[in-house]
Amino acid sequence: MNFADILKGREAEGKEKHVPEIDIIRGHGKDKNDFVRVTVGKEVPHPNTAEHHIEWVELYGITKEGRTINFGRMGFEPIYTDPVATFHVKGIDNFKAFCALEYCNIHGVWQNCIEV
Amino acid sequence: MNFADILKGREAEGKEKHVPEIDIIRGHGKDKNDFVRVTVGKEVPHPNTAEHHIEWVELYGITKEGRTINFGRMGFEPIYTDPVATFHVKGIDNFKAFCALEYCNIHGVWQNCIEV
Amino acid sequence: MNFADILKGREAEGKEKHVPEIDIIRGHGKDKNDFVRVTVGKEVPHPNTAEHHIEWVELYGITKEGRTINFGRMGFEPIYTDPVATFHVKGIDNFKAFCALEYCNIHGVWQNCIEV
Amino acid sequence: MNFADILKGREAEGKEKHVPEIDIIRGHGKDKNDFVRVTVGKEVPHPNTAEHHIEWVELYGITKEGRTINFGRMGFEPIYTDPVATFHVKGIDNFKAFCALEYCNIHGVWQNCIEV
Repeated sequence: MNFADILKGREAEGKEKHVPEIDIIRGHGKDKNDFVRVTVGKEVPHPNTAEHHIEWVELYGITKEGRTINFGRMGFEPIYTDPVATFHVKGIDNFKAFCALEYCNIHGVWQNCIEV
Repeated sequence: MNFADILKGREAEGKEKHVPEIDIIRGHGKDKNDFVRVTVGKEVPHPNTAEHHIEWVELYGITKEGRTINFGRMGFEPIYTDPVATFHVKGIDNFKAFCALEYCNIHGVWQNCIEV
Repeated sequence: MNFADILKGREAEGKEKHVPEIDIIRGHGKDKNDFVRVTVGKEVPHPNTAEHHIEWVELYGITKEGRTINFGRMGFEPIYTDPVATFHVKGIDNFKAFCALEYCNIHGVWQNCIEV
Repeated sequence: MNFADILKGREAEGKEKHVPEIDIIRGHGKDKNDFVRVTVGKEVPHPNTAEHHIEWVELYGITKEGRTINFGRMGFEPIYTDPVATFHVKGIDNFKAFCALEYCNIHGVWQNCIEV
């Protein structure tokens, strides 16, 4: 068995939406810098209760040389915060892809990647 | 001894800036919602190297009834990300204060609170 | 207002127990090393449900030179894990004190320190 | 691209050892409970410097019904702590497998699973 076997992606989406969407936003950060935003439930909000919620999202970048960088994880508090995380990544153009993971306490770990 | 004894605040600032600044931003989130942004080194960027960097920031809210809510923590990756975290807090007007903590691997734990 | 104002300690304990207990355990780790264990609800287990639980504990050390080191945080999953975290600290004798924090989603942030 | 593409496992091991080893330990916890320990560098210690270190490990369980539970993540502090995390999992016998992830700031994300 491999961790890849429990990862879910867009092919597993049901009525509730879990895939973390990744947006690269140019020039809108502090000092006109770029950032990368990860959102769960962008079109259809995911439930956000003590019993069923998104616990965290995290973002990885793959450099043009093939190294994997974990930019960090953001944890959320059920009921009180929405599952959106903004990563102020430096040198976005050094990366050829970004991958996000998120965890729903009922439906497990979901992944998404974008190539840039 | 009490954890409060090792917390530093604005009174301890030196040439390098550590106090986490807290900004409430109204109506600019997804769906025009509010959010709370925590920034370290807002005016003067803090060093960001493997040897000396900000590891994480986190945000707390104190409700008008006096409960303390931890909205989550965001971790950063030295060199690759800037220490800025945006918390999509729901119902900002239910809170009377916000407090942020941050950790510098060389200079310890710093706090700041704002009353609203 | 200061973050210290929302920290609770042994003086605030009620029927439910929140103060994180810190134990230094000598010679029982991998390769006979020492470690530091933080336990919430050591004598009386704390509730552990989706609605009411301990979210995380973390440990700090204060070196004999007065630096504060954050050894990391351990997050827990309500229902499925007990709030116990073991930190494999290297060079325990270089520290003059240890402080732990923990967060209960209903009762806020609690602290405890021991001098060694 | 899929997050699975950047995950490494035992097949990618080189001279430095990264695969997180998972041990189930019966009856040695608080109150004779079981726990699950994740260790990086069990036989050969991994470098632990500011420039090259293990940042975190985390543990997942797959229940006999097929649900994935994230038991939490433990972060480490380079130089000061060894990459060992002990998860006090309740009801170990309800799980058919455990998977661990770990992140090395130079060599990326590594996985390992055991079936029980």
